[in-house]
Amino acid sequence: MTRDTLITPVLTVENDASSTRQDMLAVEEPLEIRLGGTAISVTMRTPGHDLDLATGFLLTEGIVEDVQDIASLRTGSPDNLVFAELKPGLAPDTARVQRNFYATSSCGICGKASIAAIETLPRRSMPSPGTPRVDSATIHTLPDLLRHAQPVFERTGGLHAAGLFSPAGQLLALREDVGRHNALDKLIGYALREDAALLSASLVLVSGRAGFELVQKCVMAGIPILAAVGAPSSLAVETARRFGITLLGFVRDHKFNIYSGRERIQ
Amino acid sequence: MTRDTLITPVLTVENDASSTRQDMLAVEEPLEIRLGGTAISVTMRTPGHDLDLATGFLLTEGIVEDVQDIASLRTGSPDNLVFAELKPGLAPDTARVQRNFYATSSCGICGKASIAAIETLPRRSMPSPGTPRVDSATIHTLPDLLRHAQPVFERTGGLHAAGLFSPAGQLLALREDVGRHNALDKLIGYALREDAALLSASLVLVSGRAGFELVQKCVMAGIPILAAVGAPSSLAVETARRFGITLLGFVRDHKFNIYSGRERIQ
Repeated sequence: MTRDTLITPVLTVENDASSTRQDMLAVEEPLEIRLGGTAISVTMRTPGHDLDLATGFLLTEGIVEDVQDIASLRTGSPDNLVFAELKPGLAPDTARVQRNFYATSSCGICGKASIAAIETLPRRSMPSPGTPRVDSATIHTLPDLLRHAQPVFERTGGLHAAGLFSPAGQLLALREDVGRHNALDKLIGYALREDAALLSASLVLVSGRAGFELVQKCVMAGIPILAAVGAPSSLAVETARRFGITLLGFVRDHKFNIYSGRERIQ
Repeated sequence: MTRDTLITPVLTVENDASSTRQDMLAVEEPLEIRLGGTAISVTMRTPGHDLDLATGFLLTEGIVEDVQDIASLRTGSPDNLVFAELKPGLAPDTARVQRNFYATSSCGICGKASIAAIETLPRRSMPSPGTPRVDSATIHTLPDLLRHAQPVFERTGGLHAAGLFSPAGQLLALREDVGRHNALDKLIGYALREDAALLSASLVLVSGRAGFELVQKCVMAGIPILAAVGAPSSLAVETARRFGITLLGFVRDHKFNIYSGRERIQ
């Protein structure tokens, strides 16, 4: 509980008056992920659930498809290192991983090339268009469930959240982070380690907006429904349509928009 | 005006009812920046002000300190490329740029190492602690000015904004993007191309939260005051204190917190 928040003195100004008080901040620290001794990623994240984060990252970057592909996973000293080893015979192209994920194609840099890059990667399978099916009344309940389960956000106002829900609307897991992509990787890593079947049988709600990167992670993990409290981007919608993901946006105040995959919402 | 938004049909669900309508999305597309023929960055951004974005990126990554360091800058075909050339004699370490900015130090990965990495880079000078000085009543007016000047956000709800303000509270420039770091790079690039003296004589307000990366960019650009509508992270505060930046958070509803550099607020 102490590594994810930090107390610091601040001067609060309200209209003309000011007062000194203690403020609680969300902690942001780099985490380096090493695969077979090679650093493959450094991300600014909120400490906690680092093994979930590393597991999710390995999946959503196309390095592993299942938790069995990982021979060992441990945190290092100092605290901001995770060491991963793959099963013998699995040799990832770490050079590819270290390059920017999008900087691939000689056919030009555009949204289509970004989508094409996903198509080249091994990924978990997506359930059929009608599966799972979720009632719209259930969707309306999710934002309150997510917000009330966010312990660090309540204290700091500074964290994104990603929640994994059953089709009946039960909150199965929640992860928070200063980075939305990390919150989702932590959640995906949790599910992969706990029971990979959760990924294809659940839906995810994220605080804030949904860009390409979040949809890409759901594609890689085989998560069929992504809901966001905020707006999706053009490329998020295009990617969701291409891969058969149900994408919901502006999920709040008993309203939401369906951008793709409406077969899963009844 | 047409490249930054896209219209798509959506199904809107409100309580039990649903209806099909046209929704406007913020466009997200990759932009590749090439320096002397080498790709040094691919970022997901909202098209528009791409030369500002590339200029700001070159400054905040420590590759140039002034616009005179850039010999040429042009957009390429297709639309998602910017080609930059430096003045003869300036040879950037593109290998360093291509590596993750934080993955530097052999002393371990931690917040201190991230701050130390900034210290090794050439950067614009920061004005003295009391300069410029801004009235707290002026700060209270900024969020409304920023919001009312956000044309794409009004239409899509999907964009971050960064605004450059004079110490008297006049909005000098505004940039929007799906990525907050891109909105700030666009704004910094604009100022560097327009009049570099603006950087040290102005303040920046960003929508949303302030993490390490945004403070780092202000350090590199010599921007003395960074204000955020949302919460700062622990490392954002630590970095602002180290480099003498005035950092304000939760700037809204006639209130704000001063996390560092209170000498500039009266």
